Amino acid sequence: MTYCVGMLVEHGLVMIADTRTNAGVDDISCYRKLHILTESEDRMIVAAASGNLSVTQLVLSLLDEGLEPLEEGGEKRTLATVTSMFRAAQLVGEAVHEARDDVSKALEAENISAGISLLLGGRVGNGPLKLYLIYSAGNFIECQRDAPFLQIGETKYGKPILDRALQWDTPIDEAVKVGLISFDSTMRSNLAVGRPLDLIVIPEDSSSPTIRRRIGADDAYFDDLSTRWSMLLTESRATIPPPPFMT
Amino acid sequence: MTYCVGMLVEHGLVMIADTRTNAGVDDISCYRKLHILTESEDRMIVAAASGNLSVTQLVLSLLDEGLEPLEEGGEKRTLATVTSMFRAAQLVGEAVHEARDDVSKALEAENISAGISLLLGGRVGNGPLKLYLIYSAGNFIECQRDAPFLQIGETKYGKPILDRALQWDTPIDEAVKVGLISFDSTMRSNLAVGRPLDLIVIPEDSSSPTIRRRIGADDAYFDDLSTRWSMLLTESRATIPPPPFMT
Repeated sequence: MTYCVGMLVEHGLVMIADTRTNAGVDDISCYRKLHILTESEDRMIVAAASGNLSVTQLVLSLLDEGLEPLEEGGEKRTLATVTSMFRAAQLVGEAVHEARDDVSKALEAENISAGISLLLGGRVGNGPLKLYLIYSAGNFIECQRDAPFLQIGETKYGKPILDRALQWDTPIDEAVKVGLISFDSTMRSNLAVGRPLDLIVIPEDSSSPTIRRRIGADDAYFDDLSTRWSMLLTESRATIPPPPFMT
Repeated sequence: MTYCVGMLVEHGLVMIADTRTNAGVDDISCYRKLHILTESEDRMIVAAASGNLSVTQLVLSLLDEGLEPLEEGGEKRTLATVTSMFRAAQLVGEAVHEARDDVSKALEAENISAGISLLLGGRVGNGPLKLYLIYSAGNFIECQRDAPFLQIGETKYGKPILDRALQWDTPIDEAVKVGLISFDSTMRSNLAVGRPLDLIVIPEDSSSPTIRRRIGADDAYFDDLSTRWSMLLTESRATIPPPPFMT
C-alpha cells in the first residue's frame, strides 16, 4: 500500500509520501516514492507514485531517458525541456501509458495489476506552481482552489482532516501540519502505510528555498504531533455532551 | 452507498445505520437499513444491511417466512426459535447464501453485484449480547473485546475515530457519541451516506429499556455535535506547534 498527498495552497506546494511497499503482509520493504524528476535553475518537477512498483520504475526510467522524438531526427523529449507544467503532465501521462502498454499483458496474465497513479507537482520557468493527478491511463486532472489537495493510494482514512482543515488560504506551515495529521490517521488504521515519510515544500515565492525532509521512525516532531493529536481528540470528545436520549 | 456500525462494549450494544440508498448519483432514496428481525420477551435480534437492496430484502423475507425445515415434516426455522445468537448468525448466514444463489446468476449477467453484508446483534434468552458481521458468502465473524466494533459499507472515513476512542470499557453513552462522530466524518466525505440515521441501544442489563431513535436531518443534538466537533478539531490543530523545519 501507499499514501501520498499533494497540497497546493496560496503560498506553496507541499508533497508528502510514505515509503512502505508490500507484496503481501510478509514481504514489506522501504522504497522512496517521492521523486525529484528534474531540477535546475528554471524548473523543479516532483512526482509521488502509487501502485505497481515495477511500472512506476519503468515510467521513471522512460522519463529519465526521454521519450521518442515526435519527428524523425528530433530530440528525445524530457522534462528538462518542457515549456510548462501542463506539458510536463502530458509527457508523464504519455510515459505512464507507454509503460502500461509495455507490461500490462504479461502482468494481467498473472492477475497482477499494472495500474499506477502519480501526483505531479512543481514549476517551470516563471509559471505558477501546479499540481496534477495522473491516472493509470495517462489522463490527468489539475488541483484547483476549491479543494486544494490531491491524494493517491490509501486515501480515505486521511481525507476527513483535509476536507475540514485545508483551504486555499491555509498558511503553508499549517498545511504541512495538516498533511502530517492526515498521515498519522492513515498509519493508525492501515499498517501498509508507514514511516519514513518523505516531504518536499516548494514555496510560491521562488526566492525562498525548497524544503526537503525525511521524517524517520523516530522523528521527534512527528511523535509529538501524534501524541498531542490523540490527546486533543480525547479531550475534545469529553467536552461534547452525551446524547440527550441516553440520559 | 451505506454506512453501518455496531459497537459491543461492556455495558451494551449500539447499532447505527444511515438510510441513503443510491443507484447512481441521480437516483437517491431513503430506505431503512436497521431492522428488528425478532423481538419478544426472551430475545431481541437486530440487523443492519449494506449492499444490493433487493438481495437484502430477499434475505429479510426469507428469514421472516422461515427457512426450510432440516427434516421432512419439521417446522420452518426462524429467528424466533433459535437457541443462541450463534445459531441466529448461522441461520442468517444460510439465508444470505440462499438469497445469493437465487439471484446472483441473473444479476451477474447484468454486471450488478449481488453482494451484501450484514451486522447482526442482540441477545437470546439469558445469553450475553453478541455482535456478528455476516459476509456475502454467509460466513461470519464475531466482534470481540480487543476491537469492540464492526463496520460495513463505507467504513474507512469513520474508522480512525473508532480506532482511537472505542474500548471495551467505554461507557455506553460515550460509545453512542463516538459512533455519531464516526458518522459525521463519513457524511462529510461521502455524499452517498446521509441522515436520517437509525440507532438502537440494547443495554447489557436486561432490565434497562432498549433505546430506539431516528436522528433526522434537523436533529438538534447531531447538528450541535457536528458543529462542536468541527470547532474542536480546529482549536486542537491550532495548539500543535508548527513543524520546526518550517520556521
